[in-house]
Amino acid sequence: MTPALTTQQSAFERTELIRALSAPKGFGDLTLRDRRPDAIELLGGIPAPELLPTTELAEAITRVLEKPGAPALQYGRTEGLPQLRELIAARENVPVERVLITNGGFHGLSLAIHLVVERGGLVAVDNPIFPLFMRGLELSAARIHPITVGELGLDLDELESWLVAGARPVALYTVPDFHNPSQATLPSAQRVRLVQLAERYDFVVFADNPYRELRFTGEPAEVSAFHDSEHVIHINTFTKTLGPGLRLGWVVLPERFVSDAVALRSRQDSHTSLLVQAGIAELLATSEGYFDEVLDRARPVYARRARTLADALEQHAADALSVTVPEGGFFLWPRITDDAIDADQLAADASAEGIEYQRGSFFRSGPDHGSSRHLRLSFGDTPEEKLIEAAKRLARAIDRQRG
Amino acid sequence: MTPALTTQQSAFERTELIRALSAPKGFGDLTLRDRRPDAIELLGGIPAPELLPTTELAEAITRVLEKPGAPALQYGRTEGLPQLRELIAARENVPVERVLITNGGFHGLSLAIHLVVERGGLVAVDNPIFPLFMRGLELSAARIHPITVGELGLDLDELESWLVAGARPVALYTVPDFHNPSQATLPSAQRVRLVQLAERYDFVVFADNPYRELRFTGEPAEVSAFHDSEHVIHINTFTKTLGPGLRLGWVVLPERFVSDAVALRSRQDSHTSLLVQAGIAELLATSEGYFDEVLDRARPVYARRARTLADALEQHAADALSVTVPEGGFFLWPRITDDAIDADQLAADASAEGIEYQRGSFFRSGPDHGSSRHLRLSFGDTPEEKLIEAAKRLARAIDRQRG
Repeated sequence: MTPALTTQQSAFERTELIRALSAPKGFGDLTLRDRRPDAIELLGGIPAPELLPTTELAEAITRVLEKPGAPALQYGRTEGLPQLRELIAARENVPVERVLITNGGFHGLSLAIHLVVERGGLVAVDNPIFPLFMRGLELSAARIHPITVGELGLDLDELESWLVAGARPVALYTVPDFHNPSQATLPSAQRVRLVQLAERYDFVVFADNPYRELRFTGEPAEVSAFHDSEHVIHINTFTKTLGPGLRLGWVVLPERFVSDAVALRSRQDSHTSLLVQAGIAELLATSEGYFDEVLDRARPVYARRARTLADALEQHAADALSVTVPEGGFFLWPRITDDAIDADQLAADASAEGIEYQRGSFFRSGPDHGSSRHLRLSFGDTPEEKLIEAAKRLARAIDRQRG
Repeated sequence: MTPALTTQQSAFERTELIRALSAPKGFGDLTLRDRRPDAIELLGGIPAPELLPTTELAEAITRVLEKPGAPALQYGRTEGLPQLRELIAARENVPVERVLITNGGFHGLSLAIHLVVERGGLVAVDNPIFPLFMRGLELSAARIHPITVGELGLDLDELESWLVAGARPVALYTVPDFHNPSQATLPSAQRVRLVQLAERYDFVVFADNPYRELRFTGEPAEVSAFHDSEHVIHINTFTKTLGPGLRLGWVVLPERFVSDAVALRSRQDSHTSLLVQAGIAELLATSEGYFDEVLDRARPVYARRARTLADALEQHAADALSVTVPEGGFFLWPRITDDAIDADQLAADASAEGIEYQRGSFFRSGPDHGSSRHLRLSFGDTPEEKLIEAAKRLARAIDRQRG
């Protein structure tokens, strides 16, 4: 073999699809690398492992694997396991035909991109944004237009002005509940307005909703506006509630996209692991209201962690950081109030002090409306005593710049 | 919401990617539909459920889920779980960096297509062919050129003539071991020649190898030619040995494709279910040589099934069908020797008699060199007594046309 290899080296032309994919940098580097045992890492939207129902899941999978003929090890339907789709459809209050099982939330996003965004298409996105979505958009070499996300969520006045001025995006990406990174939740009335804009200007809203079940205070915002429209793909996942490693999620699709989504999915990887689907369907059927019990155990833990970290920052760094306690989700998004502090230097000093977080500048999708003066602190998988220690280390990092 | 919906109906323009995807017909319809309990179904390349190590897998997953911090439920690396990649790399005798974990064999194919085949690109393919690969090629709206697969596998003379005449495909798709549907295995020397052609004419061989571990007679053909070249992507899966429902496979990639494959995969669904990866890695580590024990239990069962079905066809339909006993894999590919028999009518009559199979015409990728005079009978998941009954039913179906 070897002689032939050396006689002609391939020119190796990448496909157009692949050429549009950038090398990882910034955000993803930190999230996806190996963990650093000596540091307190507040990096990713990671659930607390001790809240995941591991024992019950092992039992559920064991029951599933005891079934005659091992149906969980056989081929399944591209749309997903009927029992699991039915459980989800009942919870979402949509017809089961509109529920498509995915390999987690990001997979739902990539399917939505392929379905809706023509190559080079224009997509409006959150600013600040969950940065990996911009990487996903590279699948369609999309152009992006940032829309500001403020304390009340996506700025629909800004969006509408842009549309009225003639912009015609094919899609809009937003995280409506407990925005990543900036905590805000889009109020129910604004959801109705967003969907009306999507219908009037004929774009599709990608409503990316991984944190919605993890509200610890206040009233939930409605998702019915998303489900009542042909202009919304609602992307959901069990990642934050049952574990990222499952790679299990779902999308609620408008009817018009269902057959295309199935056609695409059947050419990707046929279907999501039936062992995982059947195991989770069995787990959720453990008892009436089982999933709610799992959530009810989780929410107060995350509430305490959010409060603990916010209080500790208040105690140790109130003169440098402004903190808002979130109503749900996994993130604090403190703002650096002391103009003398350099944000990048702070991240470097924090790392030296033994605390890792995502710097706000990673989350910009366009003009910087202050994102780079924020820190994103993920508290989901960190116990309270470590969160207090993290706040102390962050305070020491701040002090380094003050000399 | 409803008023806005009715004021403007969306034009709903599909993306170019989606427009290239055809509606399912023929082959896939039968494989993916619900099973028919009253019939004997010899439809899909499905392993025998009783050979899958269900109990051991449940125990392995239980052990995995007992680990502190539940690492199998956390995020993982896009390339795959290190322990699993190392097990596979050792078995394949390649550096671990070249092993990428996938959601099963079809997923490996779709990744290879995206990596190598530019939209509208030219791809040489088996004729007859595993039909779902042609559906996969729709992801790149590829043009196909059929190369005959005969009793000794892919016809390399035909391929070389075509290349010498000036054809410049970007890829070639073939099933080298126990060809689906036509049983043949490409001999080792021909593999070397195929790879030399790929290197000389600068195309990439997609060597799709789901059945390679299931040889029951004869000497294995070498895969080292595939692994020693920058011009082969070797696509593998645990589907036929540990279960399709896992959706777990791997590709052995040339180094030049590794980073692109990871970049693509990270934008699709991040990584394969870590629960599945960790469960299978734990299962395979049950004992030294555990996977070989699983295979050693499986091979004689499939050998007996192949022989039993071939013998029963010989006994009941020798005047209408010519049968070759395969050396491995899950398929018989009998030829209808009686010219008076209409093949489509036979399939319909067989269905009426209570036996379902795939008709040979589904497997054509170009000129019909006799495929439509064949039947593909899958025997993997059917016990011997049912295979004998299947042969009798098929004989009755043949008799229907003879009046």
